[in-house]
Amino acid sequence: MKNNKPLILVSNDDGVTAKGINELIRMLRPLGEVVVMAPDAPRSGAACSLTVVSPVHYALCNKEEGLTVYACSGTPVDCVKLAMHDVLSRRPDVIVGGINHGDNSAVNVHYSGTMGVVLEGCMKGVPSIGFSLCNHDPDADFSPLVKYVQGITAQVLEHGLPEGVCLNVNFPSAPSFRGVKVCRQTRGEWQHEWAPCLHPRKSNYYWLTGSFHPVEMGEDSDAWALEHDYVAITPVQIDVTAYGMISQMTNEWNLDY
Amino acid sequence: MKNNKPLILVSNDDGVTAKGINELIRMLRPLGEVVVMAPDAPRSGAACSLTVVSPVHYALCNKEEGLTVYACSGTPVDCVKLAMHDVLSRRPDVIVGGINHGDNSAVNVHYSGTMGVVLEGCMKGVPSIGFSLCNHDPDADFSPLVKYVQGITAQVLEHGLPEGVCLNVNFPSAPSFRGVKVCRQTRGEWQHEWAPCLHPRKSNYYWLTGSFHPVEMGEDSDAWALEHDYVAITPVQIDVTAYGMISQMTNEWNLDY
Repeated sequence: MKNNKPLILVSNDDGVTAKGINELIRMLRPLGEVVVMAPDAPRSGAACSLTVVSPVHYALCNKEEGLTVYACSGTPVDCVKLAMHDVLSRRPDVIVGGINHGDNSAVNVHYSGTMGVVLEGCMKGVPSIGFSLCNHDPDADFSPLVKYVQGITAQVLEHGLPEGVCLNVNFPSAPSFRGVKVCRQTRGEWQHEWAPCLHPRKSNYYWLTGSFHPVEMGEDSDAWALEHDYVAITPVQIDVTAYGMISQMTNEWNLDY
Repeated sequence: MKNNKPLILVSNDDGVTAKGINELIRMLRPLGEVVVMAPDAPRSGAACSLTVVSPVHYALCNKEEGLTVYACSGTPVDCVKLAMHDVLSRRPDVIVGGINHGDNSAVNVHYSGTMGVVLEGCMKGVPSIGFSLCNHDPDADFSPLVKYVQGITAQVLEHGLPEGVCLNVNFPSAPSFRGVKVCRQTRGEWQHEWAPCLHPRKSNYYWLTGSFHPVEMGEDSDAWALEHDYVAITPVQIDVTAYGMISQMTNEWNLDY
């Protein structure tokens, strides 16, 4: 008998044991068959990185009716590539990353391993969504997110997404939300990024840290939405060409060498 | 006495010992003072990843008139962040990534550690350029690139680049080039990405490999330019918002939960 339930591939960057992904799995199971291929340990800040200097492996963790969970030694992008190559019986109907413990709005989209999952899914032609909560607490409360995660995923299953477009959904750290805003990526900069790390013998050891400073916060930006307790959906595209620059360079630069 | 020469920060993802970065340093020294902060070992496929679960350190490798070289334990993005925080006496005039051993055109911009250098430089507000040669040979011939690398870098020093825009420059693997084309990113997909890796006791071990298949190759695409022996300059932007999708979702989706 053919299984007509949607096939949902789930991954993240906080690793298979994080609360966020396990809450996400619980939220998505009513919507379809869930297959998880997630990193076997945290890979925060993994972006779209790949594992190229060592082999990648995975192992089955859990299998029950409608849910199969694998842990993988690779990056978030490796997880998506390997799941689609090796463990899924057919193309998934949707790929969902998260729920990330921490903010992936604004320029953080470029560093995020959760958005690595989503960009990779999108490059593979599968409608893909990343969910992130602006709260780093490993025991954060994900319950206010349930109806949004289920509602947005159901709409992606219904509408699909245009080729080369995926969604970056961020939730404010608040007990309830004022609604949903579809936003653009906020411009801004990380500052004060390094804290000295004392080493008993050596110098020049640092921890990466810092704080994000928006340089603008228009009402259409994801930082504004989050600041005002809205759920921020930022549609993201794979094509990063700066089209306006093509004619400018062609006309104004000397490119004859 | 004030030093008025341009300050050029160089990094890559193949590591500080790679031929590509050492050829790049040689090409750039006539243009200004060069400071190198590069990974202490290969970080291919590092994208914009960050080091968050361990400290990052760096060490001086070499210092001579107009050139200082540091090796760093972190990712390409860490290298840029740490150089700007700790070793540069002032903001650099340009950040240059490469020369990468391998193609970073098309969707490879998302996986590339060399482009990680460049995107990070751009997010820090510094004009940034990545150079890549479509040849993986560790002893590839970089001599046909000299006048292009010097010419393009000199023009970036002269014109600057708009805020949030950087350059992804790819060279075909050819003894000479037919000229320079300013291009858009080619759409396409990696296929056949995993090769089994035999393990004496365990299963499900794989090497990441594969081949890139463009789904289109219009004459304005970077894949077309490279295929026809042109140098491909693809201007890249930090803002990945899919603007067209904002009104579509706002008008057509039910976002009331």
